Amino acid sequence: MQFTAAQISFLINGKIEGNAEAVVTSFGKIEEAEQHQLTFFANPKYEEFLYTTHASIVILSEGYELKHAVRPTLIRVPDAYSAFALLLSKYEEVARQQLKGIEQPSYLAPTVTLGTDVYIGAFSYLGNHVKVGNNTKIYPNTYIGNNVKIGSNCIIHPGVKIYHDCVLGNNVIIHAGTVIGGDGFGFAPQADGSFKKVPQIGNVVIEDQVEIGANTTIDRATIGSTFIKAGAKLDNLIQVAHNVEVGNSTVIAAQAGISGSTKIGNHVMIGGQAGIVGHISIADGSKINAQSGVSKSLKSPNTAVTGSPAYDYTSALRSQAVFRNLPEMERRIQELEELVRQLVAERVNSL
Amino acid sequence: MQFTAAQISFLINGKIEGNAEAVVTSFGKIEEAEQHQLTFFANPKYEEFLYTTHASIVILSEGYELKHAVRPTLIRVPDAYSAFALLLSKYEEVARQQLKGIEQPSYLAPTVTLGTDVYIGAFSYLGNHVKVGNNTKIYPNTYIGNNVKIGSNCIIHPGVKIYHDCVLGNNVIIHAGTVIGGDGFGFAPQADGSFKKVPQIGNVVIEDQVEIGANTTIDRATIGSTFIKAGAKLDNLIQVAHNVEVGNSTVIAAQAGISGSTKIGNHVMIGGQAGIVGHISIADGSKINAQSGVSKSLKSPNTAVTGSPAYDYTSALRSQAVFRNLPEMERRIQELEELVRQLVAERVNSL
Amino acid sequence: MQFTAAQISFLINGKIEGNAEAVVTSFGKIEEAEQHQLTFFANPKYEEFLYTTHASIVILSEGYELKHAVRPTLIRVPDAYSAFALLLSKYEEVARQQLKGIEQPSYLAPTVTLGTDVYIGAFSYLGNHVKVGNNTKIYPNTYIGNNVKIGSNCIIHPGVKIYHDCVLGNNVIIHAGTVIGGDGFGFAPQADGSFKKVPQIGNVVIEDQVEIGANTTIDRATIGSTFIKAGAKLDNLIQVAHNVEVGNSTVIAAQAGISGSTKIGNHVMIGGQAGIVGHISIADGSKINAQSGVSKSLKSPNTAVTGSPAYDYTSALRSQAVFRNLPEMERRIQELEELVRQLVAERVNSL
Repeated sequence: MQFTAAQISFLINGKIEGNAEAVVTSFGKIEEAEQHQLTFFANPKYEEFLYTTHASIVILSEGYELKHAVRPTLIRVPDAYSAFALLLSKYEEVARQQLKGIEQPSYLAPTVTLGTDVYIGAFSYLGNHVKVGNNTKIYPNTYIGNNVKIGSNCIIHPGVKIYHDCVLGNNVIIHAGTVIGGDGFGFAPQADGSFKKVPQIGNVVIEDQVEIGANTTIDRATIGSTFIKAGAKLDNLIQVAHNVEVGNSTVIAAQAGISGSTKIGNHVMIGGQAGIVGHISIADGSKINAQSGVSKSLKSPNTAVTGSPAYDYTSALRSQAVFRNLPEMERRIQELEELVRQLVAERVNSL
Repeated sequence: MQFTAAQISFLINGKIEGNAEAVVTSFGKIEEAEQHQLTFFANPKYEEFLYTTHASIVILSEGYELKHAVRPTLIRVPDAYSAFALLLSKYEEVARQQLKGIEQPSYLAPTVTLGTDVYIGAFSYLGNHVKVGNNTKIYPNTYIGNNVKIGSNCIIHPGVKIYHDCVLGNNVIIHAGTVIGGDGFGFAPQADGSFKKVPQIGNVVIEDQVEIGANTTIDRATIGSTFIKAGAKLDNLIQVAHNVEVGNSTVIAAQAGISGSTKIGNHVMIGGQAGIVGHISIADGSKINAQSGVSKSLKSPNTAVTGSPAYDYTSALRSQAVFRNLPEMERRIQELEELVRQLVAERVNSL
Repeated sequence: MQFTAAQISFLINGKIEGNAEAVVTSFGKIEEAEQHQLTFFANPKYEEFLYTTHASIVILSEGYELKHAVRPTLIRVPDAYSAFALLLSKYEEVARQQLKGIEQPSYLAPTVTLGTDVYIGAFSYLGNHVKVGNNTKIYPNTYIGNNVKIGSNCIIHPGVKIYHDCVLGNNVIIHAGTVIGGDGFGFAPQADGSFKKVPQIGNVVIEDQVEIGANTTIDRATIGSTFIKAGAKLDNLIQVAHNVEVGNSTVIAAQAGISGSTKIGNHVMIGGQAGIVGHISIADGSKINAQSGVSKSLKSPNTAVTGSPAYDYTSALRSQAVFRNLPEMERRIQELEELVRQLVAERVNSL
């Protein structure tokens, strides 16, 4: 695809300075962009590159005053970054809409139901009674188990595995290699020390507007459902155990883990590599720092915790600061002990 | 599949109260179950739902006395949860047994040997000399390398990758996306600061009754074997490095990692996100808390550790408790220093 | 493949003692090797096995003096382990070179360009304009997105997913299930508390001689590239976020995570399960201990850190040692307080 400055300016409602026929075919960063690339200038830190960039078109803010002439065509808008991001989104959307049809070989059970404008990549497997909504794109090498329902406008990236009976809403994005609906980790200890599998016959329900990163695992419920509520965003390599609920618009960074039956509220932020034990509740708006280990419910909304075991963020930071001085602190205690010993000895002598 | 109350009661040796012809087609939790679902009532906390549930059949204990009439058909048994779990297992077993035959397209080298009642899903790849035992089910999009041997009654979920020469026993379950037998992480530092790959030509041996979660990685040995012994249960996203041994009926929670050549004993429990360094031994029955970092061998059986670096559980909890008071403790030391300084000064003055 | 002692001795320039016609077909550890296996003896700890091994051929050092006669054929070389490793490498190389051609069914877009001696496994998908260099082996069930460029002599193990526009150099190895080029985790908070996806239109560039383990995830840049520089070695289940740079010959152990836009220098070593926050720099030669949490740039080269938050290794170890004595330390402070209280009281009384 290629676009002229005039076309782009029209899309973002901007004003052109320079050659309106300048052509771009892709996007770049201002410091790295090559000819026929589109870039933007928003951060003053990068000002020097505005005058040296090889980009053919630069989007910039209405208010910026040029120090001297520049080579690229300029498009002026009120907010350069937002306009650029809008173009990126449009570009991706257009590229995605070109994906249509069923590539061969693929495996669709005869009972599969597909909406309009669906894409099914080669080597994808759709089991019995799978339903796929309009405009959903399923990339190659994907496994969709029996009775899975996927809504409209979803993107299922390559190699995703969704076990039977799971349900996805609309506008859901799942990245490559992620596993939805694997068995929860449930084993009953036996008298002889061995473990017996507890059947996991629930499912996973993923609501609208959820995005899930690559190689993440979300286990099915023992009975009932593991829930990822509307608008939640999960990064890569995250573990969500059986019967967990992740609330609306909650954000979870990479490699975090949530143990079984824990309920995470709405608008919670969970840092990378944090761990949360099972069977607790995390109040709405909680902030859990990276690498924290949360072992008790967080009951007050909007509080921040850190550490393992995790507690109140500010207090924990103070303890961590003192921690660095522990050897010094021990030395001070020894000195005190010595001094006090002398004082006590003198007192005894003076009696 | 659908079942009547009479059929279910027969299977679990129960006594029917109500309509023996009531029909169910699936399972549900008592608080969420819909018509034509089967549920159970065991925990008194859920008593109210017994009288409001939409389930068609409820399994409950012989001893429970109804407060008033209920809508569903009841089936009385000595232990409601066990009876329910038994039904779940039977249901899954029956569903699994219907999986048979080789779906097309799939790739089986001419030298592959298959037992009876085997299922091979579409887009699965079985290399040279692969052997698969009776009644083993291999889901779609799976890769089984040359010379791999898989026992009987195994379930290999979609997208599992097993490298060449690995060996699986009987009744092994491996969940989606897990990688068995990738190269161990072995590199010899060179004089110029670069690293040279050390060939990893061992394999992975997984014994009977082992279950491994989704997207876990178990590396092949440099020479010899990485072992997962009989009855061990591993959760999702776990790292098991080359030449590790995991003992019988040991349980490892999600996102834990075990470094190279470490030997984990029998009946050990390892919490989520725990890490264990290489070349150490963990005694039988050890309990390693979530997020612990074990840097030394645990030599006495049945001890519990926590923390990073990990040590004795009870002591570590005490240290963690004091840790929270470190700023307060520092303040107390400052006060003591002030008081002692005054005492010393007065003593000097009094001389 | 089978080899005689004479052939092996020729390959490693050794001297034979015993039957030059002894035949081996595979490799083993000295304590476990069976007939027709080749092993080596280098570590004196294993001396007893030299006299009991069932191996048919043993490689050992020129200097070692036999205590009594041994059964296997011996091959003497200056450095037994190096000679053995060389044979392993040769063996793997030969095995790999036998992989050639395009297995069916596979999906190659008409615009794909393949070098000579390439292997494409069944069920692999190569999108538009994909380029694959000479002698590169792509195992089954792999997804290679549009415009991806892969150099020569690479090994892409089964089930790897490489998103569009990513670039791999020569001699790159990527293990099974790894995802290259998934979207970076970028969301703009909206006024209503929801999050809007920031398009991720950069790519991932992986330079020569890089090896990446299984089920690792490396996200594409928002704009520009996420870089893995030449000779870097990454283990399994690692998270590398968008716009990160990993330097030359840097080594990262399993389950470590690096947040967005952080720059890791050359020859850095990062331990397992370590986490590094975003937007910082790690100086060349830094050593980051396992499970550390690095929250600030490391500016001096060749320093070691540990802990979470991480700081100077030696100091942190001292603090950790004191940490274990915190309850005892608190007791000592209480004693001091009691003694000082008495001293103060007496002083008051004596006035």
